[in-house]
Amino acid sequence: MRKSIATVCLSGSLEDKLHACADAGFDGIEIFEPDLVVTDRSPEEIRALADRLGLSLDLYQPFRDFEGVRPDQLEDNLRRARARFETMRRLGVDTVLVCSNVATATTGSDEVAAEQLRRLGDLAASYGVRVAYEALAWGRYVDDYRRSWEIARLADHEAVGVCLDSFHILSRGHDPAAIEEIPGDKIFFAQLADAPALTLDVLSWSRHHRLFPGEGAWDLGRFVTHLVRAGYRGPLSLEVFNDVFRQTDTGRTAQHALRSLVWLEDRAARLLAEEGGGEVGAALDRIADVDEPTGYDYVEIKAEDTGEVEVVLDQLGLSFRGQHRTKPVRLWSAGQARIVLNEQHARDLEPHLAGVGLGVADAAAASDRARALAVRAVPRRTQAGELDLAGFVAPSGLEVFLNDRRTETRSGVEPAWAAEFDHGRPGHTREIAGIDHVNVSHGWDAHDEAVLFYTSVLGLQKPTATEAAGPQGLVRSQVMRTGSGGVRISLNVAPLDVSHPQHIALACTDIFAVARRAEDRGLPRVPVPDNYYDDLRARFGLDDATLGRLRDHQLMYDRSAAGEFWHFYTPRVGSVCFEVLQRTGGYDVYAGDNTPVLLAAQDRLDRASRRG
Amino acid sequence: MRKSIATVCLSGSLEDKLHACADAGFDGIEIFEPDLVVTDRSPEEIRALADRLGLSLDLYQPFRDFEGVRPDQLEDNLRRARARFETMRRLGVDTVLVCSNVATATTGSDEVAAEQLRRLGDLAASYGVRVAYEALAWGRYVDDYRRSWEIARLADHEAVGVCLDSFHILSRGHDPAAIEEIPGDKIFFAQLADAPALTLDVLSWSRHHRLFPGEGAWDLGRFVTHLVRAGYRGPLSLEVFNDVFRQTDTGRTAQHALRSLVWLEDRAARLLAEEGGGEVGAALDRIADVDEPTGYDYVEIKAEDTGEVEVVLDQLGLSFRGQHRTKPVRLWSAGQARIVLNEQHARDLEPHLAGVGLGVADAAAASDRARALAVRAVPRRTQAGELDLAGFVAPSGLEVFLNDRRTETRSGVEPAWAAEFDHGRPGHTREIAGIDHVNVSHGWDAHDEAVLFYTSVLGLQKPTATEAAGPQGLVRSQVMRTGSGGVRISLNVAPLDVSHPQHIALACTDIFAVARRAEDRGLPRVPVPDNYYDDLRARFGLDDATLGRLRDHQLMYDRSAAGEFWHFYTPRVGSVCFEVLQRTGGYDVYAGDNTPVLLAAQDRLDRASRRG
Repeated sequence: MRKSIATVCLSGSLEDKLHACADAGFDGIEIFEPDLVVTDRSPEEIRALADRLGLSLDLYQPFRDFEGVRPDQLEDNLRRARARFETMRRLGVDTVLVCSNVATATTGSDEVAAEQLRRLGDLAASYGVRVAYEALAWGRYVDDYRRSWEIARLADHEAVGVCLDSFHILSRGHDPAAIEEIPGDKIFFAQLADAPALTLDVLSWSRHHRLFPGEGAWDLGRFVTHLVRAGYRGPLSLEVFNDVFRQTDTGRTAQHALRSLVWLEDRAARLLAEEGGGEVGAALDRIADVDEPTGYDYVEIKAEDTGEVEVVLDQLGLSFRGQHRTKPVRLWSAGQARIVLNEQHARDLEPHLAGVGLGVADAAAASDRARALAVRAVPRRTQAGELDLAGFVAPSGLEVFLNDRRTETRSGVEPAWAAEFDHGRPGHTREIAGIDHVNVSHGWDAHDEAVLFYTSVLGLQKPTATEAAGPQGLVRSQVMRTGSGGVRISLNVAPLDVSHPQHIALACTDIFAVARRAEDRGLPRVPVPDNYYDDLRARFGLDDATLGRLRDHQLMYDRSAAGEFWHFYTPRVGSVCFEVLQRTGGYDVYAGDNTPVLLAAQDRLDRASRRG
Repeated sequence: MRKSIATVCLSGSLEDKLHACADAGFDGIEIFEPDLVVTDRSPEEIRALADRLGLSLDLYQPFRDFEGVRPDQLEDNLRRARARFETMRRLGVDTVLVCSNVATATTGSDEVAAEQLRRLGDLAASYGVRVAYEALAWGRYVDDYRRSWEIARLADHEAVGVCLDSFHILSRGHDPAAIEEIPGDKIFFAQLADAPALTLDVLSWSRHHRLFPGEGAWDLGRFVTHLVRAGYRGPLSLEVFNDVFRQTDTGRTAQHALRSLVWLEDRAARLLAEEGGGEVGAALDRIADVDEPTGYDYVEIKAEDTGEVEVVLDQLGLSFRGQHRTKPVRLWSAGQARIVLNEQHARDLEPHLAGVGLGVADAAAASDRARALAVRAVPRRTQAGELDLAGFVAPSGLEVFLNDRRTETRSGVEPAWAAEFDHGRPGHTREIAGIDHVNVSHGWDAHDEAVLFYTSVLGLQKPTATEAAGPQGLVRSQVMRTGSGGVRISLNVAPLDVSHPQHIALACTDIFAVARRAEDRGLPRVPVPDNYYDDLRARFGLDDATLGRLRDHQLMYDRSAAGEFWHFYTPRVGSVCFEVLQRTGGYDVYAGDNTPVLLAAQDRLDRASRRG
């Protein structure tokens, strides 16, 4: 279906917005009236610019407080409408959004509202304009799309139909299934927005906290199936009021927005196909399938000099497995945990988490999907005989590589690319099983985009977000994960101006053994304060011997109804550090209560190192 | 009364917090348990540090999910309590906050809860500890302070009383007057927080959006009168969970917090005095009276070279009134609008809004008040015979000077300091009447502190905040004003990394005359787009002649039921620009709908100037 976006979703001038939407690949836009009012370009210039860029102007919005008013007010409202229709004629826009009256309505009579909309329809028709009537969630009398449709039906005018906005319907908890009872040709327009689950007055929620589809709590795919089943074939248009997107780079947000619509259309098509609605589903474009990744192939740390990281890896019990045949890249491993150390094109760079390699069932399909979602590919130079892994850049800058080739080796099944390394002697660290998760950090303005990247490109799930208090403010975390837990990526938004370490968490089967070896080899730790162990005693009733063992190895602990959890952290090297953890039973979360302990301890280490 | 604060209000380590609270002048603190858990200092060290700093440790908090549970759970809860009491003994804290059960309660029986609290009281008494039981706003069964008191009353144990937290009471809309029915000696602790009026789930509201008293929507002064009338004489303690304060500098926030309590105690004392409760009011410290300022004496612009500003002032019709006798400072004026141009200590500085001078009834009293509120004074060097104006630094860095001396001159009553300038020939600009308002801009982290500064130090009022969309994000505005409108200061929070101009708004009586003269003298304007005038036509039905006059002079317009409003803006010079406005009838607001037009036009000017 055609893809459109309201100009209010983006930052910048109206001209910036048009260029960014065209560059991202949108088919059309909704002109948000205040954006037109503040530009110094005439409506004719905007129309000509849109023409040149290949963008249709799909909607003019909003026209407010029209229906349900006293006769004298109606005359003034029709005068206002005439002035807007003149502007629309100059722009060449043929549909206007009329939202339900919030301010001047004096009657809730459907008949009066319908009669007044019929008069508006007559005026509109004389300008070749169609009126798309929308129930705002906070409309004075009309706040339910079923009622706005009833009024439009009563108006019985060819120029009067409805606009359906997912926000106004889903925020009120209204069932969108009744959309299918509206004739498709009377749905003049469809606006789509997701939103986080919030208990907030609906006006503030709507004006500040909408999200692009796929980023919030709602099933927008299902919403679109109702539109399609109703016979709607107009544009799928985004109307997302969001304080963050209003500040971020126009072009970047436009791409991000389009990715959301491509994902959404595909998702709706899949739902229709599952329900046997293949026929109507033909209206929707699908992209390549996504199967969730099976696990981590590797994690890549990049730096001009990765020597310090190698010391830590050795202390943790990983083994050097070889040098890459053609590149300054080295592989360390233990169990299924593989760490790639990359010194290529890394001049002046401190050690940092640069990429992750994920195992997938079908790398070609996954790459097709990523390309359809307009994700930026990682340019790579590959020598003859080397595997050409598909790589994509996540919003935080993390590179994500996809691989579906495995080879059988003496030490078990390995990713095929591992053969490009001159294998050293494998170590004997049976306790380290693999990579449990990686913890990445990004700015407040990249978070929603990152969530959409991991859901749409990789099919990851999004459990409830958490937050932890650090000495410099709250750190918000959103884990993205596969259903199996094979891939978990924790996305962290740190307080402004605070550098938050990335970390790589290694899962092990005997954390005491790993800790002892690390101590023998001289690994420093992020120290755990004594008060923490007193707190564990109070919380869990642990005995002295157990607490003593935890304290001896500076381990932190948690337990849930399902099982137990132990972990420790290394100090950071560059901007990266390692966590070693052990889960038993069905313990499947993260020790959220321990995070403030870690943050405070890291802060002490950082201050000590600044003091020299 | 004694002043205390929960460590959770502040950023930094526990040690940082103790130092900052002592430096700010607090008498004591509440130890927020997670702050203790994450520190590497032992409880004994914290106790010793607090002793040395002269801070009492007034409360240990929180102890959760104690009452209303099954017998086996009760035993575990008593075990947990014993461990916490051990810690409290090491800290030397004698009061523990027990908040109502949110997770493990299985019965809402007041008798069961009371019986269990009695057992806790026995255990506490054996440690010399008192239990302050608090109803959380989201408690499972107990969410009303009147019920928590009923349970504490039933418990009938000398070691069991209540803690009253203004947030949990006022967020639920409960009447705080019933506090007076609780015996003062059973109110073991009082926690104070203000909050903005929000429709948000009460848990999120409580954990992220509390404010210091005086910054939100509630009447905390009234709340304190109920405490005092009940006979409570314990500490007034702040417990403010706020995401911003958790990130701002520890010492600055501690000072800001103490200012809030000093203001609050004074306010409660005044309320009691008004009600004839002078006797109980004797428990409260008062500070000097505040009378709202009468108007602007002057606005000060500072720069290494203020020449460009003088050109604009001349174009606007102000006259050069003289050079200061001893300083590189010049005075321009028209009507009651006085602009002081200061080139002293201004090396490399671009023109910026540096200060405002306000007329007050009693400058000595106002200064005493500012000093009692621990506001930073402006250091000034004054020559013999010159007026020594008291000056204070607002959180945005703006200097606020107070003056109560007036002299009669040929051109009317003038501030006495004006005599320090060699008067030039006064101009003939009768159209400019005075300074209508100034518009200052500060970072997201200074806003609440600034609001408190203007309410507590100057007694300004705080109407509803507004916001306006600019091309780089939303700009939030809070006008602070006197009841008469003589002083209005608009506080703006611009999007991150966006430099938002300060402006000085001059009120006039004939904006067309001012605009014509400015045009004759070559003043450039912030241009107003044609689409804006089309919008005015649609909104207000203005005729062609009226619109033509507005457009000819590039004026913007608004009207309300009360009257009309016209204004225009000059381009910025340095970081400051001028607005000229005219109000008629009772128009008493700002043309909020015009702000996006201004922001977009300024953005175009800025881009053009960057292009060179």
